[in-house]
Amino acid sequence: MYTLVTLRSVPDFAVGYVRDLRARWALEEAGQPYSVQTIGPEDQMSSTYRQQQPFGQVPVLLDGDQPIFESGAILRHLGDQLGLMPTGARERQLAEMWLYAALNSVEPYFGAFAELDVFHAGEAWVEARRPGLEAMAKRRLGDLEAWLSGSDYLAGTFSVADIMMSTVLRLLDSSGLLEQFPAVSAYQARCMDRPAYARAVAAQVALYAPKQAAA
Amino acid sequence: MYTLVTLRSVPDFAVGYVRDLRARWALEEAGQPYSVQTIGPEDQMSSTYRQQQPFGQVPVLLDGDQPIFESGAILRHLGDQLGLMPTGARERQLAEMWLYAALNSVEPYFGAFAELDVFHAGEAWVEARRPGLEAMAKRRLGDLEAWLSGSDYLAGTFSVADIMMSTVLRLLDSSGLLEQFPAVSAYQARCMDRPAYARAVAAQVALYAPKQAAA
Repeated sequence: MYTLVTLRSVPDFAVGYVRDLRARWALEEAGQPYSVQTIGPEDQMSSTYRQQQPFGQVPVLLDGDQPIFESGAILRHLGDQLGLMPTGARERQLAEMWLYAALNSVEPYFGAFAELDVFHAGEAWVEARRPGLEAMAKRRLGDLEAWLSGSDYLAGTFSVADIMMSTVLRLLDSSGLLEQFPAVSAYQARCMDRPAYARAVAAQVALYAPKQAAA
Repeated sequence: MYTLVTLRSVPDFAVGYVRDLRARWALEEAGQPYSVQTIGPEDQMSSTYRQQQPFGQVPVLLDGDQPIFESGAILRHLGDQLGLMPTGARERQLAEMWLYAALNSVEPYFGAFAELDVFHAGEAWVEARRPGLEAMAKRRLGDLEAWLSGSDYLAGTFSVADIMMSTVLRLLDSSGLLEQFPAVSAYQARCMDRPAYARAVAAQVALYAPKQAAA
């Protein structure tokens, strides 16, 4: 039995983007039921929760009573359990490498660029920093463009690596950059056309909808 | 047979800090011989190398003829092969989670702070950005301090997760921040007192020494 631990409430801009989406998507791909447990700021600071998640972040996936933290480790774990890793040895290795690549060679750059407007709008340093961060994001998009040209998915067949990378790409949704990279754009659309993605987003949005309606 | 692919030459400030150190350290822990293959900028841009390393980065580990990219994936691979993963199921899971955590929840923040002075000294935005990045680095150091208080290593016994985290911590070597977190400082010293770490650094420095002597 899987239990997904996530935030009780989030700002409007984060609805649909909370990182539990990655775990939800994998679970939905496999038609795997799961329950949701929500936490608040007091839990995030508690030593009990820090034993499960040392940074007080979400998500945590409880597999039975075993807590798994870091969305990369959660997807790697679910990939094996739910048949979302490729079957060939080399393709499995590729999926693992791309999981790490999405988290360390791509997301930090996309995140730094996206955060300029999400978290730092109007701060004194933002406009001077923007060109460098935009250039680095475009460099990584170009690297991805070359890899994805002629390939539907990162490791041959759809895998947890694609759940990770396509959710990382969403950091640039409103940047106008993705449209400059046709293979990357087509790849993201291919991933997000999957019914399990839509179900995962809907499930996350539904969790926060009552609070929004009541606000 | 392992072959480590790394850069033919690097700037002085990078000697001892090139990311191949993580792979070297793991190989040295196991007393595992390996050969080194060096590449230059023309290789990094070539489509042949991009098939092995989609971002043109180093290191690549060749396990026989199978290329592995991303230092996280390399350490995970060597962890199993060289006995550098814990043996208990829960401890193995912890080591895997901490590998991802070091790369996604810690390194991006330490790296952004360290790069202010390494790559961006004197740029217009740096001083306005510094307090926010320093605060985030200290927050992560505080999280680590809590986890490491009372533990020698991240996952019980020494593992590839510690190779990863202690090399990530080196990003802050000259920041003056580490000294404010005694459990983290003691942990880093504990890791770096290992003879295999010293051998790994020496091997990397030796690769670049002839060029430096000739310059």
